Amino acid sequence: MQLQLVTWPEVESYLTRSQGIVMPIGSTEQHGPNGLVGTDAICAEQVAKGIGDRTGAMVAPTISVGMAQHHMGFPGSMTLRPSTLIAVVRDMVESLAVHGFRRFFFINGHGGNIATLTAAFSEIYAGASLAPASGRPANMPAVRCLLKNWWEAKQVGALSRELYGRAEGSHATPSEVSLTWAAYPEAAKPMTLDPEIAPTGGFTDAADYRRRFPDGRIGSNPGLASVEAGQRLLEAAIVGMAAEYESWIKES
Amino acid sequence: MQLQLVTWPEVESYLTRSQGIVMPIGSTEQHGPNGLVGTDAICAEQVAKGIGDRTGAMVAPTISVGMAQHHMGFPGSMTLRPSTLIAVVRDMVESLAVHGFRRFFFINGHGGNIATLTAAFSEIYAGASLAPASGRPANMPAVRCLLKNWWEAKQVGALSRELYGRAEGSHATPSEVSLTWAAYPEAAKPMTLDPEIAPTGGFTDAADYRRRFPDGRIGSNPGLASVEAGQRLLEAAIVGMAAEYESWIKES
Amino acid sequence: MQLQLVTWPEVESYLTRSQGIVMPIGSTEQHGPNGLVGTDAICAEQVAKGIGDRTGAMVAPTISVGMAQHHMGFPGSMTLRPSTLIAVVRDMVESLAVHGFRRFFFINGHGGNIATLTAAFSEIYAGASLAPASGRPANMPAVRCLLKNWWEAKQVGALSRELYGRAEGSHATPSEVSLTWAAYPEAAKPMTLDPEIAPTGGFTDAADYRRRFPDGRIGSNPGLASVEAGQRLLEAAIVGMAAEYESWIKES
Amino acid sequence: MQLQLVTWPEVESYLTRSQGIVMPIGSTEQHGPNGLVGTDAICAEQVAKGIGDRTGAMVAPTISVGMAQHHMGFPGSMTLRPSTLIAVVRDMVESLAVHGFRRFFFINGHGGNIATLTAAFSEIYAGASLAPASGRPANMPAVRCLLKNWWEAKQVGALSRELYGRAEGSHATPSEVSLTWAAYPEAAKPMTLDPEIAPTGGFTDAADYRRRFPDGRIGSNPGLASVEAGQRLLEAAIVGMAAEYESWIKES
Amino acid sequence: MQLQLVTWPEVESYLTRSQGIVMPIGSTEQHGPNGLVGTDAICAEQVAKGIGDRTGAMVAPTISVGMAQHHMGFPGSMTLRPSTLIAVVRDMVESLAVHGFRRFFFINGHGGNIATLTAAFSEIYAGASLAPASGRPANMPAVRCLLKNWWEAKQVGALSRELYGRAEGSHATPSEVSLTWAAYPEAAKPMTLDPEIAPTGGFTDAADYRRRFPDGRIGSNPGLASVEAGQRLLEAAIVGMAAEYESWIKES
Amino acid sequence: MQLQLVTWPEVESYLTRSQGIVMPIGSTEQHGPNGLVGTDAICAEQVAKGIGDRTGAMVAPTISVGMAQHHMGFPGSMTLRPSTLIAVVRDMVESLAVHGFRRFFFINGHGGNIATLTAAFSEIYAGASLAPASGRPANMPAVRCLLKNWWEAKQVGALSRELYGRAEGSHATPSEVSLTWAAYPEAAKPMTLDPEIAPTGGFTDAADYRRRFPDGRIGSNPGLASVEAGQRLLEAAIVGMAAEYESWIKES
Ligand code: NI
Ligand code: NI
Ligand code: NI
Ligand code: NI
Ligand code: NI
Ligand code: NI
Repeated sequence: MQLQLVTWPEVESYLTRSQGIVMPIGSTEQHGPNGLVGTDAICAEQVAKGIGDRTGAMVAPTISVGMAQHHMGFPGSMTLRPSTLIAVVRDMVESLAVHGFRRFFFINGHGGNIATLTAAFSEIYAGASLAPASGRPANMPAVRCLLKNWWEAKQVGALSRELYGRAEGSHATPSEVSLTWAAYPEAAKPMTLDPEIAPTGGFTDAADYRRRFPDGRIGSNPGLASVEAGQRLLEAAIVGMAAEYESWIKES
Repeated sequence: MQLQLVTWPEVESYLTRSQGIVMPIGSTEQHGPNGLVGTDAICAEQVAKGIGDRTGAMVAPTISVGMAQHHMGFPGSMTLRPSTLIAVVRDMVESLAVHGFRRFFFINGHGGNIATLTAAFSEIYAGASLAPASGRPANMPAVRCLLKNWWEAKQVGALSRELYGRAEGSHATPSEVSLTWAAYPEAAKPMTLDPEIAPTGGFTDAADYRRRFPDGRIGSNPGLASVEAGQRLLEAAIVGMAAEYESWIKES
Repeated sequence: MQLQLVTWPEVESYLTRSQGIVMPIGSTEQHGPNGLVGTDAICAEQVAKGIGDRTGAMVAPTISVGMAQHHMGFPGSMTLRPSTLIAVVRDMVESLAVHGFRRFFFINGHGGNIATLTAAFSEIYAGASLAPASGRPANMPAVRCLLKNWWEAKQVGALSRELYGRAEGSHATPSEVSLTWAAYPEAAKPMTLDPEIAPTGGFTDAADYRRRFPDGRIGSNPGLASVEAGQRLLEAAIVGMAAEYESWIKES
Repeated sequence: MQLQLVTWPEVESYLTRSQGIVMPIGSTEQHGPNGLVGTDAICAEQVAKGIGDRTGAMVAPTISVGMAQHHMGFPGSMTLRPSTLIAVVRDMVESLAVHGFRRFFFINGHGGNIATLTAAFSEIYAGASLAPASGRPANMPAVRCLLKNWWEAKQVGALSRELYGRAEGSHATPSEVSLTWAAYPEAAKPMTLDPEIAPTGGFTDAADYRRRFPDGRIGSNPGLASVEAGQRLLEAAIVGMAAEYESWIKES
Repeated sequence: MQLQLVTWPEVESYLTRSQGIVMPIGSTEQHGPNGLVGTDAICAEQVAKGIGDRTGAMVAPTISVGMAQHHMGFPGSMTLRPSTLIAVVRDMVESLAVHGFRRFFFINGHGGNIATLTAAFSEIYAGASLAPASGRPANMPAVRCLLKNWWEAKQVGALSRELYGRAEGSHATPSEVSLTWAAYPEAAKPMTLDPEIAPTGGFTDAADYRRRFPDGRIGSNPGLASVEAGQRLLEAAIVGMAAEYESWIKES
Repeated sequence: MQLQLVTWPEVESYLTRSQGIVMPIGSTEQHGPNGLVGTDAICAEQVAKGIGDRTGAMVAPTISVGMAQHHMGFPGSMTLRPSTLIAVVRDMVESLAVHGFRRFFFINGHGGNIATLTAAFSEIYAGASLAPASGRPANMPAVRCLLKNWWEAKQVGALSRELYGRAEGSHATPSEVSLTWAAYPEAAKPMTLDPEIAPTGGFTDAADYRRRFPDGRIGSNPGLASVEAGQRLLEAAIVGMAAEYESWIKES
């Protein structure tokens, strides 16, 4: 059930049976020579919609631009400052909490979001934790947020290793590129890359990143990506993450 | 050309021939008994993609959550505070300006965004206008932002009047509801509404809005919406706004 | 009744009979070769005081510096960033709400303030609209803000057209310049301008504005301004806006 | 020379002979049973205009609402949060610095502004002091800000002591009340107060202040105020502060 | 009793007998040719610990980096922007208020902190003073903050004058340098300075400060500092400030 | 070499041979029935000083209050909001970068800081990565930040496992408690805990945390802590982290 595609009375009805919602968050950033700029947003959105279809969970609109300052050396990359992204997540969660949503299951498509998103959860919780001092009632409803990276479903890890082994790498991976091609086959760009496997390592700002990773990839060979692999990976991610959602939503 | 569906080298190539980009911005908010919560985001996105197809312009990812505090009395509505939305727009424009984009054509789907989006443009321009005092170089590149509401294409106005006359209203209009049904026919919810035409008037915060407009509509009868009308309206909006884009992008 | 010119017991007494207050807001910015830098603040203040005299309404101190980043290319212009002005308006309204004021009638003297001021209202309303999520009591008092541009009183429009026709223009208009001369006759600077009527068009930041409008005017001929016209325009604005205030304050 | 009452070419001309400007800042807050809510803003404005007349200095528009959280227990009082006032002062100084103003002489009318205004100066200076790290050019122009409380002119202190001795007190003083009556004789409210001299002491927030100072005064007897005293005090303040301005503006 | 060196049950127990806490705040900045960069933090911490030992008061961890933008021309100096320091103090006070602390006795070691710290208190109080408008309960607990500079204990003033007379100066004073040497004798750097007594005067930003005070001192001769003097000054400060604390904590 | 204990000329000299600095960051929060409130700050500070002694690195003053909103249910705990901590880290790094420091090695003592600190690094890097759009010079110096948790030195992990096995847990661990006792033996509080090993699990805000972990510990038995173990752990941490620092500082 996608929030964008239902009416408010349908949301009202949903809230009588569940307080959970799936929140996809991705990024808009370079993904190497043949990966899409929208890779991380597309992956998060596809997996989130799949969870919704499989479990009946409500799915919020995708946060398409994340924290990707390190990719700014490549045309098309976009970033929110961490302080901006924290405000966005806080406003979105507070909005949905007004209606009675209490459990926010973030499906994340971008490693660079993890720290800022986790900090955003703390910013939200801090509102409650500091409440007695700022005069807020003690019985205000408490929300819970959970961050799950779609690629960490155990089914996905197993399949990625089987398909790509060490060519998976960590940015512009053949797995994520495949998944986006499964969603948008017309955007697939098969290509032989040189070097086949990109260099690895750490990085700081955009200039540093571009110097270390000249074509944008880190440790990966997305030349191995395919629509078929993407279909299998998407299915694996949905199965794994739907189970995680259902289990979490039942926790006391 | 959607930014999410191309690679960074393709963006680099695009920038050699154009500095323009279409920025769709909508909202996630109630749209009456049979309108979708995502109506404004869907409309903006559909029209923006159409402009991209027609003109070859780059289209950025949609800002799906806008400024909709007044709709918070209805389940499913979401809002960013104006100060948050200003930061989001500033970060997005600054990101794209790093790569050489200079003209930002915002296709807006939500009246409630207009003031805040216009303020965001001023926040961005103020960075340049106050630059001499803060030590920034005088020759920094200047960006231009333009806000266009899709329903203000003259072709759309004519068609809406022809189709719906005074039943068009101003929120949860049959025109916008039709347009979303054209995009997602499976989400169409034909319905007879009571009263047929909703009340009109001003409003302040969410409680005030709900008191005045009990089912969420303002002045409209979206019971008249249809997929067919939506197809015609979408086409009209694309034709009209593509012409606006092409004309603006050529201005000196 | 000007807030600055009464004592706190007089304010306390006023609040037993009214919850309304007139809030003048202007700008400090260039107004062409013979218009005053304070034109917009003076106009808003004069009209607001007139409303106070005519209706007995309380009048707050004038916000003299507004959002005028586009005028920064001309000496003497000042601007608040939109984010700053939003904070100012929020603090002022919250302050007065502590005492029981509930209706804030903003008399605006500057087109450049409209978007930011409207966004500020939404920032204030959002505090209430998001209250259930942040633990605020549901029965907190609701405030209402209204923005009225003094020149939009229908009496003013008719008179401006009669006096100046198409020489009115949109910035440094003979009407606003006349009004300030009526208030400060010693500051009147009759002058023949060249060209008589300034160019028109859009603009972005300060450098862009100055390039398009070299002497600061847009579409106007303030060479036609006079003290006498100013007196008539001020009277028209007061009559029109006082009626608007009285009507609005009675609305349920 | 008041900035509000001149044209931009006159400001341009002024800047060829001086980089100084007088910045009046007051407050809008209770001033006891017979003092005006606008006392501090009126005093600062009157003294600033006097300095302008006497020295030819440019005088900026008055900041009428200051930091007065402790007065919020009395109807009519307004406050900006310190963080808001810092942003306002920063934007105003940066605006004027764009045009070439370099020395900002703040005439203050309210003790409660001192700390926040001083912090605002540091916020502005910090922009320059941290510039090498944030990449700003080393040769950016440096501004200087000075804060002067009008009542600290030595001529004023002597006269206050002569006129009122220990009945001067520290809030709603007969001196400041007199000065406002000199400016607005029609607003004078002669009155015998009970007790004649108000209590003294420290305070924290608004509730604490009202509990300690039930009618708003601290240590003063503004029952002694008069228009005549106000005229003498205003003259003394102008003479004293004009000398301070002229001396400071010449400092290397 | 140092907060860092006790357990939470001990804090719980402490709160049954006192709501007071000592908050040391210093700075990290140059202190001339032989004064330590940490002088102000060390002084505040030493005096605060002494108060804790003498009175049994709880002592919070030291705020080591303060507002010192003017010292940024000398290597090793650090500063928080005033707006950052206000947020820090607000969060720290709100945190401790959650547990029941109500009286915050700030022992300050740096003149440059005074304005910003005072503004921070107002920011905190403003939360309570504006509470009725933002819907907070009227009976929320009120906190009180007090700022005391350690060198203003009358015992310290007398001793400084006796020891150093006019060589005390106002920055990098022999008194504060001595006190740090008493705490860290191994860091003592006896030295003859040239000129013996540094110049005096005002300053604005870091470049201006360095130009006026080439070796960092203002008006002082820290060549006179000694461990022995430091021991006497520390004892004097503790005796004086402990008495201030005990007297203040008893105030109604 | 502790920054607090040297003079500015000594810092100037240090910068001719190194651009690195060790930045200890901890937290002030409950650490169970017998752990100190300052545990995390003490551990970070002790390890950082040890690195400084061993390698000659400069050591900055400790950030003693971190992000610990989840501990606010226990008396004595303090927290900065994530947005505040980001501003603090940004200001501290920018300050030191003015002088030429370029590599910031954060020794962290608190798991709750990791996300926010990582986000702060991105906020700092984003300043450089967005620089071309905001007009900053391309050749501005680039800084690098690294976060290391002291307990992740491989020597520490081995020793903790040897000493405590599964009784180590994850909050109020016997290892960290031991380390603080080694630093402050007089604060050691040997105690038998009930249950011996605390429960484990996740948490959200302060109320949730206290409900799940009634005495504050997670999964640990700090009843096993000892001064002797603390000495060994501290030595292990210093050896391990000094090696990490020296290796990192040499990286190109
Ligand atoms: Ni990715
Ligand atoms: Ni709509
Ligand atoms: Ni105007
Ligand atoms: Ni006053
Ligand atoms: Ni000092
Ligand atoms: Ni710990």
